[in-house]
Amino acid sequence: MRDSRNVFHLAVPCIDLDEAYDFYVTGLGCKLARRYKDRITVDFFGDQLVCHKYPEKTTKDSELEMYPRHAGITFYDKNHFDDLIALVGSRKLKYYEKPFVRFEGAAEEHHSFFLIDPSNNLLEFKYYKDSRMMY
Amino acid sequence: MRDSRNVFHLAVPCIDLDEAYDFYVTGLGCKLARRYKDRITVDFFGDQLVCHKYPEKTTKDSELEMYPRHAGITFYDKNHFDDLIALVGSRKLKYYEKPFVRFEGAAEEHHSFFLIDPSNNLLEFKYYKDSRMMY
Amino acid sequence: MRDSRNVFHLAVPCIDLDEAYDFYVTGLGCKLARRYKDRITVDFFGDQLVCHKYPEKTTKDSELEMYPRHAGITFYDKNHFDDLIALVGSRKLKYYEKPFVRFEGAAEEHHSFFLIDPSNNLLEFKYYKDSRMMY
Amino acid sequence: MRDSRNVFHLAVPCIDLDEAYDFYVTGLGCKLARRYKDRITVDFFGDQLVCHKYPEKTTKDSELEMYPRHAGITFYDKNHFDDLIALVGSRKLKYYEKPFVRFEGAAEEHHSFFLIDPSNNLLEFKYYKDSRMMY
Amino acid sequence: MRDSRNVFHLAVPCIDLDEAYDFYVTGLGCKLARRYKDRITVDFFGDQLVCHKYPEKTTKDSELEMYPRHAGITFYDKNHFDDLIALVGSRKLKYYEKPFVRFEGAAEEHHSFFLIDPSNNLLEFKYYKDSRMMY
Amino acid sequence: MRDSRNVFHLAVPCIDLDEAYDFYVTGLGCKLARRYKDRITVDFFGDQLVCHKYPEKTTKDSELEMYPRHAGITFYDKNHFDDLIALVGSRKLKYYEKPFVRFEGAAEEHHSFFLIDPSNNLLEFKYYKDSRMMY
Amino acid sequence: MRDSRNVFHLAVPCIDLDEAYDFYVTGLGCKLARRYKDRITVDFFGDQLVCHKYPEKTTKDSELEMYPRHAGITFYDKNHFDDLIALVGSRKLKYYEKPFVRFEGAAEEHHSFFLIDPSNNLLEFKYYKDSRMMY
Amino acid sequence: MRDSRNVFHLAVPCIDLDEAYDFYVTGLGCKLARRYKDRITVDFFGDQLVCHKYPEKTTKDSELEMYPRHAGITFYDKNHFDDLIALVGSRKLKYYEKPFVRFEGAAEEHHSFFLIDPSNNLLEFKYYKDSRMMY
Repeated sequence: MRDSRNVFHLAVPCIDLDEAYDFYVTGLGCKLARRYKDRITVDFFGDQLVCHKYPEKTTKDSELEMYPRHAGITFYDKNHFDDLIALVGSRKLKYYEKPFVRFEGAAEEHHSFFLIDPSNNLLEFKYYKDSRMMY
Repeated sequence: MRDSRNVFHLAVPCIDLDEAYDFYVTGLGCKLARRYKDRITVDFFGDQLVCHKYPEKTTKDSELEMYPRHAGITFYDKNHFDDLIALVGSRKLKYYEKPFVRFEGAAEEHHSFFLIDPSNNLLEFKYYKDSRMMY
Repeated sequence: MRDSRNVFHLAVPCIDLDEAYDFYVTGLGCKLARRYKDRITVDFFGDQLVCHKYPEKTTKDSELEMYPRHAGITFYDKNHFDDLIALVGSRKLKYYEKPFVRFEGAAEEHHSFFLIDPSNNLLEFKYYKDSRMMY
Repeated sequence: MRDSRNVFHLAVPCIDLDEAYDFYVTGLGCKLARRYKDRITVDFFGDQLVCHKYPEKTTKDSELEMYPRHAGITFYDKNHFDDLIALVGSRKLKYYEKPFVRFEGAAEEHHSFFLIDPSNNLLEFKYYKDSRMMY
Repeated sequence: MRDSRNVFHLAVPCIDLDEAYDFYVTGLGCKLARRYKDRITVDFFGDQLVCHKYPEKTTKDSELEMYPRHAGITFYDKNHFDDLIALVGSRKLKYYEKPFVRFEGAAEEHHSFFLIDPSNNLLEFKYYKDSRMMY
Repeated sequence: MRDSRNVFHLAVPCIDLDEAYDFYVTGLGCKLARRYKDRITVDFFGDQLVCHKYPEKTTKDSELEMYPRHAGITFYDKNHFDDLIALVGSRKLKYYEKPFVRFEGAAEEHHSFFLIDPSNNLLEFKYYKDSRMMY
Repeated sequence: MRDSRNVFHLAVPCIDLDEAYDFYVTGLGCKLARRYKDRITVDFFGDQLVCHKYPEKTTKDSELEMYPRHAGITFYDKNHFDDLIALVGSRKLKYYEKPFVRFEGAAEEHHSFFLIDPSNNLLEFKYYKDSRMMY
Repeated sequence: MRDSRNVFHLAVPCIDLDEAYDFYVTGLGCKLARRYKDRITVDFFGDQLVCHKYPEKTTKDSELEMYPRHAGITFYDKNHFDDLIALVGSRKLKYYEKPFVRFEGAAEEHHSFFLIDPSNNLLEFKYYKDSRMMY
């Protein structure tokens, strides 16, 4: 178990701060911690995500691939994973990859799906049947 | 506070798996969770870091910049931050940016330093005087 | 998650301390922390509610409205929400607004009901299907 | 101890949503959970504060008094109380009542101060020497 | 919620230390913390029970009554309450009062039963449907 | 560590409910959970104490002794123990036995004091230097 | 409950470090904390297991018995016990003793199975119906 | 962090159950969970230690070595480590190896000492300056 008082922080480039706000806060239901001229900081499922305005550093559509760069949350509780799928549906967020099962039958079996933010950052959310396999 | 049972996961490219292992496990003291042919997974301060072997996707030296892409941990407890600095010293890990204070005197005042892994992924570690400012 | 060791405190006017005691302690099952000549302090579902004797500051019946002034608890656990409804029934407390569902089908969907204390302070209790929407 | 998974919610009137945002998010460092046309919802030190746009329901300057209506947080940890005082200073937030000690020498001895939001809602923050007296 | 690091301690008279040991440790499954010549100390469901050898201070059979003197544990989790009933059955411990329901239909409804130790100390174990009513 | 969600409950006789209320709630700062005609229930440092009106069952002054019957709290945190001593002083509660050190130099070394309620029930409060010795 | 911040550590002999790594990390899904020339250290279900290279100190096949030397984990949550059985199946780890029920019908009833590592160290995993019987 | 609700269990041979009881319960302050004809079970710093009566399986004096077989606790809190040293002193328990510092100046620096039980089982207790190095 990780320490609930620490925070993981991830900094990514974004094209436009308002778009990032719309996606993360209005869409995904993250809380906005701060907004400066050149970035917004959100409480991303308890961790910190900083979207820096660096349009030139974002991934081009032509270079977009699931691997190797993405980030996200692995939920311990299946309900929280399902709640997020319901939110994606009710708020019509865009899937990059719809929910699927990976490694079925193996110990590492898990549910996963990918979202994509307006700046081509890929987000993966997972749930493992066997919680020890979360790593 | 984040949920201690969930895990943040971050996937990044790496050039060589043995080098990644040496840096994260032998150097930084992270635990190795799994090793496959094409990636290693480490328990990075309680969260999950996956190093995928994708040399062509790593950041070139000439393109290396602190912003906008980096990731790391913000510690709640100053001792844990200081312990890490001591480890960097005793194990002679390479700083990308030595410990410094940012926003001194402001509410957001915090201590920070950057490490760099062998594949040019930047890692930032922080400690905030006012723990509410961690986001 | 909030810090379980901190306490939210809310101070409201009341007409009569005995009535307030009857409503909060005998009725709603809150614990009495202190009683002074001019106020009572109750442990309101883990937070602090202070009823100050200020009859002239209470809301008149003619001015009573659900918005914008009310306070209450959002429960994480549906059982605790249902237990409270059962208590309202068995102790015949007065609803200001009976249990209903708000924003059905949306991510923000939640169950809610309002009680009213003897001094016209409105209390709302809620349960969200998706716990991330509690804010 | 209260349950860290529940949330206290408080709804108050406000004059202007942008002003409320500036005070709570930019000033006090609360996180913005949601913004609608008629209200903003903030994560207020772990609990929920909703500012509803109801200018006509706000307290007039001439009616402003410390009692009986105010709300706030009592901190268990003195550092968190002091951090907030430092933030008030560095961000030049307006005190309604500067830090003082109430009931000195008594078991109920505590430190307190009041802030005032742009819509005349009073906020009290406290720290008790004897944590059992927080109620 | 109580503080999990504190301990409630209860000291009671007993006739014979071996009998007390047999009842509490061998029978009820409490852990023995210490044994001195004149007393034994047991970890009684997480709290501390000290049986002092004072035969002359124990309650006589003729004076034995359920009220006002007894002590025990109220379980939050119904499974723990049921586990204890199963243990009483499988180890043939003696009921002073078999499991029953008190205040059925009221908010205070709870399950209860009484055991009696070899020195006539009465032990009550309870489970409340509404956990807020545990006090 | 005990389970913070369970509650230890202790039922004792008392002579007069108002006196019991004055001692436990007004004096010792416990919270009143309920009051019936024949008893009061208080949240005694997180556990439950029920004072049943049974004057004839209370201990006579002539029979009053420290052993074998008493109950109380052992604090993990020395500050909480000291806070209680300060409260006893500022509210002029009556000691049955002033603070002393027992088993000095031994592993079991602890600080202790006894209070006495208006019905001759003895209360002991303790703090152990070595927290493993709390049992 | 044990303290989640402490760690139990167990040191055992092993014949070959690579074999130990294969069994514990690749097979059983433990995390590798460190590897030196003469030992590996793994995070064994949250506790620490050190395999020292001491072939001459390992148990010979002819001396292998279930008692008295073995070690393992007793799970509080039946799901975690079942997850491990599933992993043993999907990864084809070798049972020393297949899952069975011990003391059926008694308070001590529990599920158990034994694994054996490549150096003849026996590992027992258990789940008790009544969690108080875990000791 | 390990799961506070699980238990590590270690089974070891012992020569004599009374001697084992004297060492672990009376000496080391562990709680006795159960005693059968052929073994005793103790709550060893929150984990479970079972001493099975198997004199012929105990380590002979001539074969006694610190490595590779020993077990113990690594404390997170230095006070708990120091408390144990104080207990060893006041109760005159026998050191196998007095407190010393290992790997001084390295990240793995830790304090350690060894005790030996009456059946030649070696117990190591440790404290790491950098808590991440506990594994």
